[in-house]
Amino acid sequence: MAVATQNEFKRDILNTDTNEKVTSILQKNLTNLIDLALLMKQAHWNVVGSGFRSIHLQLDEIIATVRNASDEVAERISALGVAADGRSSTVAQYSDLTAYPREFVPVTETISLVADAVKTATDSLRHAISEMAELDPITEDLLIATTGPMEKHLWMLQAQEI
Amino acid sequence: MAVATQNEFKRDILNTDTNEKVTSILQKNLTNLIDLALLMKQAHWNVVGSGFRSIHLQLDEIIATVRNASDEVAERISALGVAADGRSSTVAQYSDLTAYPREFVPVTETISLVADAVKTATDSLRHAISEMAELDPITEDLLIATTGPMEKHLWMLQAQEI
Amino acid sequence: MAVATQNEFKRDILNTDTNEKVTSILQKNLTNLIDLALLMKQAHWNVVGSGFRSIHLQLDEIIATVRNASDEVAERISALGVAADGRSSTVAQYSDLTAYPREFVPVTETISLVADAVKTATDSLRHAISEMAELDPITEDLLIATTGPMEKHLWMLQAQEI
Amino acid sequence: MAVATQNEFKRDILNTDTNEKVTSILQKNLTNLIDLALLMKQAHWNVVGSGFRSIHLQLDEIIATVRNASDEVAERISALGVAADGRSSTVAQYSDLTAYPREFVPVTETISLVADAVKTATDSLRHAISEMAELDPITEDLLIATTGPMEKHLWMLQAQEI
Amino acid sequence: MAVATQNEFKRDILNTDTNEKVTSILQKNLTNLIDLALLMKQAHWNVVGSGFRSIHLQLDEIIATVRNASDEVAERISALGVAADGRSSTVAQYSDLTAYPREFVPVTETISLVADAVKTATDSLRHAISEMAELDPITEDLLIATTGPMEKHLWMLQAQEI
Amino acid sequence: MAVATQNEFKRDILNTDTNEKVTSILQKNLTNLIDLALLMKQAHWNVVGSGFRSIHLQLDEIIATVRNASDEVAERISALGVAADGRSSTVAQYSDLTAYPREFVPVTETISLVADAVKTATDSLRHAISEMAELDPITEDLLIATTGPMEKHLWMLQAQEI
Amino acid sequence: MAVATQNEFKRDILNTDTNEKVTSILQKNLTNLIDLALLMKQAHWNVVGSGFRSIHLQLDEIIATVRNASDEVAERISALGVAADGRSSTVAQYSDLTAYPREFVPVTETISLVADAVKTATDSLRHAISEMAELDPITEDLLIATTGPMEKHLWMLQAQEI
Amino acid sequence: MAVATQNEFKRDILNTDTNEKVTSILQKNLTNLIDLALLMKQAHWNVVGSGFRSIHLQLDEIIATVRNASDEVAERISALGVAADGRSSTVAQYSDLTAYPREFVPVTETISLVADAVKTATDSLRHAISEMAELDPITEDLLIATTGPMEKHLWMLQAQEI
Amino acid sequence: MAVATQNEFKRDILNTDTNEKVTSILQKNLTNLIDLALLMKQAHWNVVGSGFRSIHLQLDEIIATVRNASDEVAERISALGVAADGRSSTVAQYSDLTAYPREFVPVTETISLVADAVKTATDSLRHAISEMAELDPITEDLLIATTGPMEKHLWMLQAQEI
Amino acid sequence: MAVATQNEFKRDILNTDTNEKVTSILQKNLTNLIDLALLMKQAHWNVVGSGFRSIHLQLDEIIATVRNASDEVAERISALGVAADGRSSTVAQYSDLTAYPREFVPVTETISLVADAVKTATDSLRHAISEMAELDPITEDLLIATTGPMEKHLWMLQAQEI
Amino acid sequence: MAVATQNEFKRDILNTDTNEKVTSILQKNLTNLIDLALLMKQAHWNVVGSGFRSIHLQLDEIIATVRNASDEVAERISALGVAADGRSSTVAQYSDLTAYPREFVPVTETISLVADAVKTATDSLRHAISEMAELDPITEDLLIATTGPMEKHLWMLQAQEI
Amino acid sequence: MAVATQNEFKRDILNTDTNEKVTSILQKNLTNLIDLALLMKQAHWNVVGSGFRSIHLQLDEIIATVRNASDEVAERISALGVAADGRSSTVAQYSDLTAYPREFVPVTETISLVADAVKTATDSLRHAISEMAELDPITEDLLIATTGPMEKHLWMLQAQEI
Repeated sequence: MAVATQNEFKRDILNTDTNEKVTSILQKNLTNLIDLALLMKQAHWNVVGSGFRSIHLQLDEIIATVRNASDEVAERISALGVAADGRSSTVAQYSDLTAYPREFVPVTETISLVADAVKTATDSLRHAISEMAELDPITEDLLIATTGPMEKHLWMLQAQEI
Repeated sequence: MAVATQNEFKRDILNTDTNEKVTSILQKNLTNLIDLALLMKQAHWNVVGSGFRSIHLQLDEIIATVRNASDEVAERISALGVAADGRSSTVAQYSDLTAYPREFVPVTETISLVADAVKTATDSLRHAISEMAELDPITEDLLIATTGPMEKHLWMLQAQEI
Repeated sequence: MAVATQNEFKRDILNTDTNEKVTSILQKNLTNLIDLALLMKQAHWNVVGSGFRSIHLQLDEIIATVRNASDEVAERISALGVAADGRSSTVAQYSDLTAYPREFVPVTETISLVADAVKTATDSLRHAISEMAELDPITEDLLIATTGPMEKHLWMLQAQEI
Repeated sequence: MAVATQNEFKRDILNTDTNEKVTSILQKNLTNLIDLALLMKQAHWNVVGSGFRSIHLQLDEIIATVRNASDEVAERISALGVAADGRSSTVAQYSDLTAYPREFVPVTETISLVADAVKTATDSLRHAISEMAELDPITEDLLIATTGPMEKHLWMLQAQEI
Repeated sequence: MAVATQNEFKRDILNTDTNEKVTSILQKNLTNLIDLALLMKQAHWNVVGSGFRSIHLQLDEIIATVRNASDEVAERISALGVAADGRSSTVAQYSDLTAYPREFVPVTETISLVADAVKTATDSLRHAISEMAELDPITEDLLIATTGPMEKHLWMLQAQEI
Repeated sequence: MAVATQNEFKRDILNTDTNEKVTSILQKNLTNLIDLALLMKQAHWNVVGSGFRSIHLQLDEIIATVRNASDEVAERISALGVAADGRSSTVAQYSDLTAYPREFVPVTETISLVADAVKTATDSLRHAISEMAELDPITEDLLIATTGPMEKHLWMLQAQEI
Repeated sequence: MAVATQNEFKRDILNTDTNEKVTSILQKNLTNLIDLALLMKQAHWNVVGSGFRSIHLQLDEIIATVRNASDEVAERISALGVAADGRSSTVAQYSDLTAYPREFVPVTETISLVADAVKTATDSLRHAISEMAELDPITEDLLIATTGPMEKHLWMLQAQEI
Repeated sequence: MAVATQNEFKRDILNTDTNEKVTSILQKNLTNLIDLALLMKQAHWNVVGSGFRSIHLQLDEIIATVRNASDEVAERISALGVAADGRSSTVAQYSDLTAYPREFVPVTETISLVADAVKTATDSLRHAISEMAELDPITEDLLIATTGPMEKHLWMLQAQEI
Repeated sequence: MAVATQNEFKRDILNTDTNEKVTSILQKNLTNLIDLALLMKQAHWNVVGSGFRSIHLQLDEIIATVRNASDEVAERISALGVAADGRSSTVAQYSDLTAYPREFVPVTETISLVADAVKTATDSLRHAISEMAELDPITEDLLIATTGPMEKHLWMLQAQEI
Repeated sequence: MAVATQNEFKRDILNTDTNEKVTSILQKNLTNLIDLALLMKQAHWNVVGSGFRSIHLQLDEIIATVRNASDEVAERISALGVAADGRSSTVAQYSDLTAYPREFVPVTETISLVADAVKTATDSLRHAISEMAELDPITEDLLIATTGPMEKHLWMLQAQEI
Repeated sequence: MAVATQNEFKRDILNTDTNEKVTSILQKNLTNLIDLALLMKQAHWNVVGSGFRSIHLQLDEIIATVRNASDEVAERISALGVAADGRSSTVAQYSDLTAYPREFVPVTETISLVADAVKTATDSLRHAISEMAELDPITEDLLIATTGPMEKHLWMLQAQEI
Repeated sequence: MAVATQNEFKRDILNTDTNEKVTSILQKNLTNLIDLALLMKQAHWNVVGSGFRSIHLQLDEIIATVRNASDEVAERISALGVAADGRSSTVAQYSDLTAYPREFVPVTETISLVADAVKTATDSLRHAISEMAELDPITEDLLIATTGPMEKHLWMLQAQEI
């Protein structure tokens, strides 16, 4: 996944080197977040069994959070003068997420699979936050604000596994 | 793209043969609609040049229409007892849409590329509508209700090309 | 269930023979839809067991859909110049739905009974749609628009049975 | 109309004897209120003549009040651990209301018939209130709160008869 | 009323011959719908007599429906690459509606005149629907969705004449 | 355009002579305002070229202003006991506005034509205001309140011509 | 009705003599407007006969207009440094309105009585406007903005008398 | 204050003697409540001094409560078939409230005067409640529901006096 | 828990002795209601297991009801001129509720513990209602209005235990 | 403060000489209004002492009025084809308002200073209104509509000084 | 106050040692925040004297902020796999806040006591923030977002003390 | 621009030295942000040329962001016990922004000038953020939350320059 890193705007927010690092890290997470939203829509449509309706609704709430997060991340990349890449081929090729089953999935397994996917995405975000501290506080704050609500969703998924 | 066609519910809405044809046609269009939403988000983030803001906003309006359409189509597949497939790998592999550029795209080219993509998706939907007349009036109506607003969006894109 | 079929208005929308057929078919479905709403309120009040709250809420959402449907159907009959009949005695006597239990009903059985009732009502609506194609496209469209959401509700009920 | 009176919940709100009396009285009124809503929908669909629109709208306002009332009464029965009975056959058999005509009904006659029906229902509620004073203040308050708005609707109907 | 029928957009939705037929039928109905809205505003401003307020309000509700219908029809013509014609001179010359009186009009006569005008417009729409079945299902659906609510309004007008 | 000027109400707001002058001036402007709304809908549907979406939306905002203005003016005529005339034939015959083209119109030309039409209508309104100062302060205020927002719209159109 | 006219604030908006005239005229109209609202509530509660509901609702709309008007007038008096007087004894003693009947009043008579009362109040306001032109344009504008909507209400009442 | 007590409606809610007692008690309180709203508007317009804005806003909140109360009481009288009397002359003559000053009133004195007036009105309501227990539980409940919020307002006024 | 009972306001709503009894009973229930809200927040945060989300949401709905109830009760105490006591030490010391576990609690046990707590609180409220009948109808009504919704919540909790 | 007065638009609303006078007067008041909003924000942030919260909130309400006023005035200048000047240097140099203190300001002094500033601004607006009567009724009306609400705010400030 | 620190979820967000430190610090602040909300409700109910209403309203605004803060903190503890402890006994025993008086409290003293309590809570939060920098940026950000609005409320309280 | 730095409140949030540094940095940025809002209003009113409407609307969106930012910064200064200075003379004298032209400005030049101004303001904010890390994390977070949205606006401006 080659990343376009040159800043195409007249006014630089960050210096060239920092900009390349920041946008590259963001692009990595953008790929995960878009895939996460698709994966959860897949789960939303195909969950079955007792408790269907509750997880069906819960998934749409998480999807709203994740779509907002991918929009924020992509627009930050663009704001830094680099084109974001959210195309299906890019997402399919570079996402860190484990593939989701093709068929109907029972509620308990759905919760477990979705929790794993959220964990993969937040691990990547936490890694990005630790790198960003040295690079750009605005982007760092954006990633922290993205990760907090996702860890809260993770709690509400995991609480159902006990 | 192997399609899962067995009806897993206790109560059949359609007979088995019709159900397989209907869900297979719907799955084809689901793939296109999900890819169309991703493609338009890509356009939304990376459009540049005079008129940026207007097309940036217009794309988000079309995306809302397309996301709603893909939800309706996927849930119709599920309602017919078949698992819908909206995973990134499926979308990347089976979509009929032409790949979108990786970089920033000027406004005029953006409009042309997006209009082409909408046309590809509506051609597929119109083909599905003509097949559905013999198969299931409820699904036919759902597809017509999906296609109408998209052809309206197509007009508003094409009107900018004259 | 004698049906009143003369058009009492000055301006005929359909010719007399067609009008009689259309309103007779609509009256049949009106009876079912009113009974379906009553049956689901019965279920809503008397469901018990783990998962109570989720099905309690879900039933009210379906009831809103069904009540809107019966209003649309009855007002179409009136619009065609014939008095609609939604009286409790008519509903009790002519409804196609299986009688619902008198006592508290556990969640799983509730879901099954309600899904059966929805299936009975949509079967009747689908039969009406097939007859209406030759008779009146406006009424056909009204019935299709009524049936679609009910089949979606049927999916969300059936998905809990797997 | 045999009434189920055993309290099926672990925690008794009222003692057994009181509970049987209270739920039995509530069940009687539930039957009337459900029938009243059906009767007024019948009137709403089939009223004709000068002043049609005003009474058509007024009836829907009363229906909203009556449906809310039947929900409150039924849920109070359930809250007392007894299954409420709102099935069409029960309503058709045990309602105190006079049967409504099958055909279109002129405005003036509509107002008179509907006012009579509201009066029948409120007489039954007032009787229940007088009995409830000794039995359960919470239920008494619920019935008073139900009756007040219906007597207000009765005024607005009767005022049109002078 | 010469109709402009060439498709001026790059991407054809329909073939040329079909497009000419479809847009020509739509243009005919656009003329009627615009005139209908003007006629009903005339009625809205100049109705007098007992019952004034009710019909005054009812007319504005119908106008909202009709204006939305004319917008949908005109934008469908444009979406098909043909310029819609809603100019006052075109409306005055080609409308099928009977001229409305110049002076104040009593309530009863207002209802009759407005009901006649709605009937003229819906007759034209029903004729268009029957022709459209062979030409374009998207346009057919749009016209059905336009006609249904207008026939409902016709009922509410005619019910006042009995 | 013969104007009906006798006051048909029991209570005169203005004396007969003043009433005739005031309503005659208002009728003139009513004709223009109705035609202006139709002309701008024509422009709204048929504008093409780069910048389409912005002017398409802007026109609907102006139309809302103009329709509100024509309603206020017509209802003032009625309030003065004279029937307002907003029929298509009257509008087509007596409007001061220059005819709008039949075909698609590019954005720049659209702005110029629409600005000309707004200017024609506000010139007529300003003339009416100057006459009204001696006749009726309530009507004068109504016309001033109508003209102000239209001159603001005129600015936003003209600003695009520089 | 002795009027308090000294300006009690540190900063004079008008000179003393003008202030006395302006507040005296406003106080006169305040008395009428408060009485008009009370009179229309009386009418609202006690109207009977066919058409009850329509006039009952219409009266509450006029009351909202009149209450807003009395608030604006009273607060203008206060803004000019003079205490407004809206006490029941003042209203009962100095109002120009004809006394309303004590008993239930049929619809037709209600409309006539209320229209007379509105006419009395607007005659007083129009007189005030003519005097205010020389005294204070801000107050003049406030009175014009108060009178316009009331004359519109007068139309809607009078239109029912023809 | 002669009270009209015959029930003019066809259907009696209460027997004649009880009806006379109930409506007579309600009429007494209606007079007080209307006067209380006028008195508080007087206070609202004419309060001065430090803390002006807070009491100015608080008074409008109480007025909303009181106006709603007078509407409920008057409509209960009408619902019982007796004409309510809320005319300014009746209010001025029969109200129990102490007259409010004519001039600007400082904040502290305003609070004290308004609290006294609320106390007078609630004393009368409490007396009515005690009498109503034997007469009509619906009216008793209406009066209790009226008095509670007013005693809460009384607290918030009195708390400022300590 | 010493209760402060002197009325500190100038205007007595109740006599001294009654006031002391009423506020003392209210204070007892205030303690329970505040503790109930805290207990349910504890449950809301720490519930785990299948069905987590549904009970998590349900608890917040009950908490809103209970917090509103404690506010109403406390403000009634203040309205009677006595300081309410809702401090954490008072609540911890005098609440009738059984202590809630410190750790995560499975769904079924959560429902049982919370239902027990609601029952304890409503038992106390019902006892207060029975005492209040002789003391103060306004407070009695406030307590009834508080208890009704809580018994409804109790039903929805208990229904899950069957 | 040199004023740009040539009309740069194609269509003149006013003749050149009048336009210069009108826009020059408006520019003067624009300067004051922008400064007034800044001054009141300064007061909003730095007021201290008992009553802080009430004045803090009141100032934000006045600021909303003043900002809306400055927008209306500036857009009127632009509508007349002249560039408005609202730059900080222009405001600082030409405003008529007395400089506000640099430090925290007690409540009483804040009220006095802000009332003085509002008075300065309304004096300037009243002067403009008197000049505008001969020049342009649309602008005159805009200024009157601006001044009225500000004089109402002035009352609410001054009332606190007594 | 023994703290439960083992992570009970399958997926660790933080390592065991860090988790124990983070949740222990959060638990400390949860105790303070819950007590702060109770303390401010106590103040809200029992404040007396001039300025009562303003502080009464202000306290409810702060309470909303504090309750939201305690919810965020408790849910963060749960998200980290540890049970939060917000029971009344825990709050009463471990809170850092000074006890609030039992009786009515005058406005000035109320402001001082409440400001002291807010200061105690924010001091604790600031200490937590400084410790959290090394432990968990997501929790640090949550605490900063909690503290900022509370320091703003502190300003608005302190500003009233000068 | 002498800065007032002593903390005038009783409770210190920061120590004296830190407080002086923090408020001094905030005051610098407050000056820029107020000037930026004024500059963008100037641009909003005076932009001309093709694309006028889009940039006119976009500027108002940015202004809302900037005004909110200046409010947050000023209130933070006050929260730290120091008077904020947002007076026009201070803004005119100390702002870092380049002066904006006096006349109408074409769209392209407007975009460039406004983007430059946003860049100047965000450069100053980024400098402040870097200094704040050592001084106060609450203020640092406030500045980061201010800067992020402004850099997003900068992107949407710059994207139009390519």
